[in-house]
Amino acid sequence: MAKFTSDIEIARAARKKPIQEIGARLGIAAEDLVPYGHDKAKVSAGFIARQQDKKNGKLILVTAINPTPAGEGKTTTTVGLGDGLNRIGKKAMICIREASLGPNFGMKGGAAGGGMAQVVPMDEMNLHFTGDFHAITSAHNLLSAMIDNHIYWGNELEIDSRRVVWRRVMDMNDRALRDIVVNLGGVANGFPRQTGFDITVASEVMAILCLARDLKDLQARLGAIVVAYRRDKSPVYCRDIKADGAMTVLLKDAMQPNLVQTLENNPAFVHGGPFANIAHGCNSVVATTTALKLADYVVTEAGFGADLGAEKFFDIKCRKAGLKPDAAVIVATVRAMKMNGGVKKDDLGTENIEAVRKGCANLGRHVQNVKKFGVPVVVAINHFVSDTEAEIQAVKDYVATLGTEAVLCKHWAQGSAGIEDLAHKVVELAESGHAQFAPLYPDSMKLLEKIETIATEIYHAGEVVAEKSIRDQLRQWEEQGYGELPICMAKTQYSFSTDPNLRGAPTDHTVQIREVRLSAGAGFVVVITGEIMTMPGLPKTPSSEKIRLNDQGEIEGLF
Amino acid sequence: MAKFTSDIEIARAARKKPIQEIGARLGIAAEDLVPYGHDKAKVSAGFIARQQDKKNGKLILVTAINPTPAGEGKTTTTVGLGDGLNRIGKKAMICIREASLGPNFGMKGGAAGGGMAQVVPMDEMNLHFTGDFHAITSAHNLLSAMIDNHIYWGNELEIDSRRVVWRRVMDMNDRALRDIVVNLGGVANGFPRQTGFDITVASEVMAILCLARDLKDLQARLGAIVVAYRRDKSPVYCRDIKADGAMTVLLKDAMQPNLVQTLENNPAFVHGGPFANIAHGCNSVVATTTALKLADYVVTEAGFGADLGAEKFFDIKCRKAGLKPDAAVIVATVRAMKMNGGVKKDDLGTENIEAVRKGCANLGRHVQNVKKFGVPVVVAINHFVSDTEAEIQAVKDYVATLGTEAVLCKHWAQGSAGIEDLAHKVVELAESGHAQFAPLYPDSMKLLEKIETIATEIYHAGEVVAEKSIRDQLRQWEEQGYGELPICMAKTQYSFSTDPNLRGAPTDHTVQIREVRLSAGAGFVVVITGEIMTMPGLPKTPSSEKIRLNDQGEIEGLF
Repeated sequence: MAKFTSDIEIARAARKKPIQEIGARLGIAAEDLVPYGHDKAKVSAGFIARQQDKKNGKLILVTAINPTPAGEGKTTTTVGLGDGLNRIGKKAMICIREASLGPNFGMKGGAAGGGMAQVVPMDEMNLHFTGDFHAITSAHNLLSAMIDNHIYWGNELEIDSRRVVWRRVMDMNDRALRDIVVNLGGVANGFPRQTGFDITVASEVMAILCLARDLKDLQARLGAIVVAYRRDKSPVYCRDIKADGAMTVLLKDAMQPNLVQTLENNPAFVHGGPFANIAHGCNSVVATTTALKLADYVVTEAGFGADLGAEKFFDIKCRKAGLKPDAAVIVATVRAMKMNGGVKKDDLGTENIEAVRKGCANLGRHVQNVKKFGVPVVVAINHFVSDTEAEIQAVKDYVATLGTEAVLCKHWAQGSAGIEDLAHKVVELAESGHAQFAPLYPDSMKLLEKIETIATEIYHAGEVVAEKSIRDQLRQWEEQGYGELPICMAKTQYSFSTDPNLRGAPTDHTVQIREVRLSAGAGFVVVITGEIMTMPGLPKTPSSEKIRLNDQGEIEGLF
Repeated sequence: MAKFTSDIEIARAARKKPIQEIGARLGIAAEDLVPYGHDKAKVSAGFIARQQDKKNGKLILVTAINPTPAGEGKTTTTVGLGDGLNRIGKKAMICIREASLGPNFGMKGGAAGGGMAQVVPMDEMNLHFTGDFHAITSAHNLLSAMIDNHIYWGNELEIDSRRVVWRRVMDMNDRALRDIVVNLGGVANGFPRQTGFDITVASEVMAILCLARDLKDLQARLGAIVVAYRRDKSPVYCRDIKADGAMTVLLKDAMQPNLVQTLENNPAFVHGGPFANIAHGCNSVVATTTALKLADYVVTEAGFGADLGAEKFFDIKCRKAGLKPDAAVIVATVRAMKMNGGVKKDDLGTENIEAVRKGCANLGRHVQNVKKFGVPVVVAINHFVSDTEAEIQAVKDYVATLGTEAVLCKHWAQGSAGIEDLAHKVVELAESGHAQFAPLYPDSMKLLEKIETIATEIYHAGEVVAEKSIRDQLRQWEEQGYGELPICMAKTQYSFSTDPNLRGAPTDHTVQIREVRLSAGAGFVVVITGEIMTMPGLPKTPSSEKIRLNDQGEIEGLF
């Protein structure tokens, strides 16, 4: 590490192997890899179809405590663990999400991992990559154009133009587009109405792409999107607009997982990237199920902390895709424990064992929650140079009281050599046969009861409050046949409660439902408990002002 | 041909060679090709830079008479001629434009060529291809977002928000977005103002990408875009917004030409696709200049008929890129001659020599116009099965009176075997050394005089009419240093005049200037003489309703 000053320098110095070589290790022939440059490739649909009868490898989820400004390093640990498993002789690969383009022009772009545990090519993964998000943007906006076009030409479906719920999307932080009036300019341009743009990762098409098993399932889910309502409140579907076929054509390449590599030349699928609040926040089902056929160990992650990310991974993705995780890793840091214990960011460098102990309550709650899904747990302490021996020991001691082990990991500085212990522990858990995965609630439970179950069991809330209109809406969806859907909670990621400032492990708090939304194509009911921003803005001095190509043709300012 | 019923069937049956093999014939090593799948690749910037000292091949422009509903087959002839030149032993390649995604969902998608003279992979070229247009969309809209963000955070540049001329773009036919109000929703979302979206091909970024010599030139041109004006009418540039660096980063891959192949496995660059009315309508300068280093013959085309396409190719692209065309092919058909001679579309199947003769006036005007640029001309009669011997002879006889030869071409049915005569004729013209290319007017001529020169010399108009405000605007731009720019005429493509119904070779008509626009980054002044639609709409039954994947995973309904 000493000779590097940043993640991008490490990434640039990576000795990447040709992507065909990475694919060959997984048994993918060159003709089954669709290359995008020399270091990225999509896996062909034909190849994936031919793997269906193979045995699945072990599935390992990496999740985390509630995020703090100190940073936990969930993706870094996912990458590190993948490399670590390969190092100890397991055939392992990782599955993570793609980055969104828009936010890179606001704040600095996100690396996929960090230090010596990264996925490359980092710059391209933060730009157009293999074009998946552009395809999603196109498919989404084709449907939008076809809806307005349908109304323009006579509105045979009798859409109530005040109740068009399908907006448009752009992969850009552009607050000007949040709330707009379209169809101005007179007769030739249509009937004016108010609508807006969301950022592409917030599109239901993104969530659908990430949950669909194959192109047939993709088209069926796209067709089931509710795009508008009539005056009698009956829904109008995407298939009524006849957009589902063309959208599927636009998405056919985007459905194929993207193969890249870690700094240690181990295989990684980077595919899909739904929001972790109004959507489920995991990489695609196609990537995960394909990886399970190709590797003995698949390490994946879920967005935000375990209260949101792991819960949705289990209750939405695993439930719907028939996945059975074999073990879970909860990432924590001494620094984050201290912040949860009340220490300010500037004081994190000072030893404070008491604060570490106090902050462990947050970690403990997550450990117990994940166990409720029948999945064995290990805690990964992602090491920072400022951590003291005594602080680390305090975390280990606390976790031991829960009947769980906490393992110190130094993959950020050392790569796979620093995470061998965790890799061995994960193998032990996964091969113990202890996993008895089951979702938190059955499909048949009433929608409101599902919400209450998540709130009490996972958040330890005292009550769920919802106005009559919301309860009526949930009941109406049950009558329309949507009662079997799982719940997708949109809650602050910073706390178990709906108050972002309430750290630790609060109990008996109130979860107020502000709004519910039906994602009929993705197949879940979104429950919104706070302000949800689906189109970010740029800061006063956006990073895009500094981004440029230098004289060597390298990208400056993106990281 | 007999066993095929459509272009797409022929394209699907193509025996494509791996793109590395196509590249190798041009001397491009596999590591200098950036593959996108197995049949498309971008040529690396490093390779292109290393070719600069090589000698240029011959440049052949394919242009046409004013388009008629009968269809002329300009691209088909471009592709056929490229194959024909290869067949007679010349090392030839073609350079054509990329297709826009949006219009494919309205009417059927466009093949690149037709019959046995096509470029493949046709389906992908009509979808996302290598992502160039998505990159242009992103770069354009990043600038848009940064402009509104600048105003939002205090408007240090004192932009008059009523005079923001930079709109947004989407590669979609979406009339609802033509005229919109943005920034609604209160304090957090900005200052409401009226604006709109154009289709991506109408973006000045597209024109810039197609005229820039390299990434440095690209950034300089992007920086020079005028995005808004202040209250005192002084311009605000893209570089003032500091978006030019990040836009260049977004466009760095899109700047590289895309290599594909014809049905006969000959190399083709398909790169860039600016509008042919408000922009210059040619493929990229980078593609053409690179092709000239790699092949002995480069066949390229320009949008619309020769009055618009060839004039802009010569006066904008060749002037600015220092290109010197060696010969021009003007494509005509017997059917189009008949339509120009007054025959209705339904009657085109009946022999009518008199109408052919009458319609030849349009062709004759184009032949004489192209010669004014000092470029030797040959006419290609693109053969249709309904053409009679006598009709073909009538065209040949007419063209001979102009001191020019007309050659019958059967490439649509026979591929390169059907176009050998034209290939030989083109070689004869190009190697004669007769070409004495010069633009129509000098840089130093006043802007209005340039417009008048085009109108009288090319359109044979009697006068140019412009209101005082337009004359004042042109003078103001001259004072601001834009007087050296060439003119980009936006006129109907169906007539030499501004009246689309006036076929043949009208004289003494009036060209009324409705509007002038400054494309300071692209480097031309747009002169608008009619209604220009920069955001198309979808028809009542858009083709997207029929587009889908069939059970074989093939795309249906796109063609």
